[in-house]
Amino acid sequence: MHEKEIIKKFFLPLADNKESFGLKNDGALISGNMVVSTDNMIEDCHFTKEYDPKKLAQKLIRINLSDLAAMGSIPYGYVMNLGIPNSDEVWLKRFSSGLKTDSKKFKLKLFGGDLTRSKKIFMSLTIFGKKNKAIHPKNIAKLGSEIFVTGNIGDAAIGCNLFNESYKINCAKNLKNFFINKFLLPEPRIQFGQDLLGKVDFCTDISDGLYEELKNISDNSGLEAVIFLDLIPFSNEAKHIFKKNNINELYNIMIGGGEDYELLFSSKKRIVSSIKNNKNFQKIGYFGKGKGIRIITSKDKELQIKIKSYSHF
Amino acid sequence: MHEKEIIKKFFLPLADNKESFGLKNDGALISGNMVVSTDNMIEDCHFTKEYDPKKLAQKLIRINLSDLAAMGSIPYGYVMNLGIPNSDEVWLKRFSSGLKTDSKKFKLKLFGGDLTRSKKIFMSLTIFGKKNKAIHPKNIAKLGSEIFVTGNIGDAAIGCNLFNESYKINCAKNLKNFFINKFLLPEPRIQFGQDLLGKVDFCTDISDGLYEELKNISDNSGLEAVIFLDLIPFSNEAKHIFKKNNINELYNIMIGGGEDYELLFSSKKRIVSSIKNNKNFQKIGYFGKGKGIRIITSKDKELQIKIKSYSHF
Repeated sequence: MHEKEIIKKFFLPLADNKESFGLKNDGALISGNMVVSTDNMIEDCHFTKEYDPKKLAQKLIRINLSDLAAMGSIPYGYVMNLGIPNSDEVWLKRFSSGLKTDSKKFKLKLFGGDLTRSKKIFMSLTIFGKKNKAIHPKNIAKLGSEIFVTGNIGDAAIGCNLFNESYKINCAKNLKNFFINKFLLPEPRIQFGQDLLGKVDFCTDISDGLYEELKNISDNSGLEAVIFLDLIPFSNEAKHIFKKNNINELYNIMIGGGEDYELLFSSKKRIVSSIKNNKNFQKIGYFGKGKGIRIITSKDKELQIKIKSYSHF
Repeated sequence: MHEKEIIKKFFLPLADNKESFGLKNDGALISGNMVVSTDNMIEDCHFTKEYDPKKLAQKLIRINLSDLAAMGSIPYGYVMNLGIPNSDEVWLKRFSSGLKTDSKKFKLKLFGGDLTRSKKIFMSLTIFGKKNKAIHPKNIAKLGSEIFVTGNIGDAAIGCNLFNESYKINCAKNLKNFFINKFLLPEPRIQFGQDLLGKVDFCTDISDGLYEELKNISDNSGLEAVIFLDLIPFSNEAKHIFKKNNINELYNIMIGGGEDYELLFSSKKRIVSSIKNNKNFQKIGYFGKGKGIRIITSKDKELQIKIKSYSHF
């Protein structure tokens, strides 16, 4: 069973309340103005012992903030669970400095937590956001709506592969840090998520990869997502390594791989002109009749690569 | 470094906000009426693979509910993180049935969560409660206040030792289940926590053992906790095995051991008469000038046993 099937079969029946949005959103609205979301990171699944604890702490905060961004809400605070093998003061100092840096940067308060001894490191964080004028509705798209993403797609997945050496990517040394940093330290689109309020069908963050997230929306909506390869925003750095690698394998990694934490949304309105402050987003396709995802290449052919979805389960 | 030292040194500086109560309480008040607390349970620290997943789910909920009880607040809902090694449907069915049973029993809603693949099982839960007419203040006692506990002390610690066979306790077979059940399925004192609002100096749950919790309060308050061995409520079942075991070792386990999830509180008022609905609590001593804990035996002698504190770190 996959993660989605498990959640649908065993946990969704327990979440039959309006606050949870049927587990179809990136967070819940637990009171008139309090948004909540939770995410975890565990050793050997999301990271290894060698990772810099400061960056781990920052990433833990940021993957949760990304859910708040997808809800269009304002960062407020968090509680945290931490399991660590011993009281390594160097590790703890570095970890807490990461919490401090990002708590300050994103104006977050620590409200409480629980500390446990554990052979493998695990960390979970529950984040709280204040509702802005509204929240983004359930993750369901409308027929004919255009599909958009923020930032660039796939840099984090390249960075993940470079960092963990899970797939050999030819990459010049001076570019490696760029990709790895995109993987270790995502930038949650807090302000942009708020700017989109009232203007989109839905808004979600691309934590599990563009392909998987689009598939979720497509399934929820009973629509086909048609996207154009040429419109997907790949960074100049990524384009730079296209020629040095098997391009189809790279597409697979970049469109199928996760950890981008950009925003994915759709709208029928001409939102380009209505968002003044941020031009950092791109139309990549539309929702049509049908189901699943179709990726169109520049020659009007469906992309022949098989995208492998990314999941932590 | 111990858990308390780690928290004080690395995390308390990040919790410098009124909502967190300086991490001195069992939960935080994150808005006008929303109380939040979080706790985790992980394999090989709190339980082993052999545990019944239904009871694990119930215990996860109940240890968090116990924090709400200590805050005097009304159960509302939760988000959960779960790491499991594979999609074992039998395990998941049993685990979710535990969530269902106790969600219904305690009127809790599931708002969301995160599922991850993990070699070792870990689970964390963040619980939400609605504020009653008030919440219990910070865990600080007043000079001259009398000390009280609910229920019986030490049955869960005996059960823990019997279940894990960590210390050999002579116990008749027909009593074993009683103790083990006290360990596996604590009863959070939700209503009692609410009944005490406005009547006590503080209220906390005895998750880390009577000795450790009293020491915390004693340290926070700059007072000595004087308790009388004869007044500590031991169950008839526990008294039954006193004569078959080394009594000092048993005291050590029962007063030092954790997992009771009863409430500990102090008050100067004559609260016995003011709580009509629940007589299930007992005065065990008082707070005097000085510091630390003194346990007085029936012969006016300080208890000579060395109590070893219980901690998950």
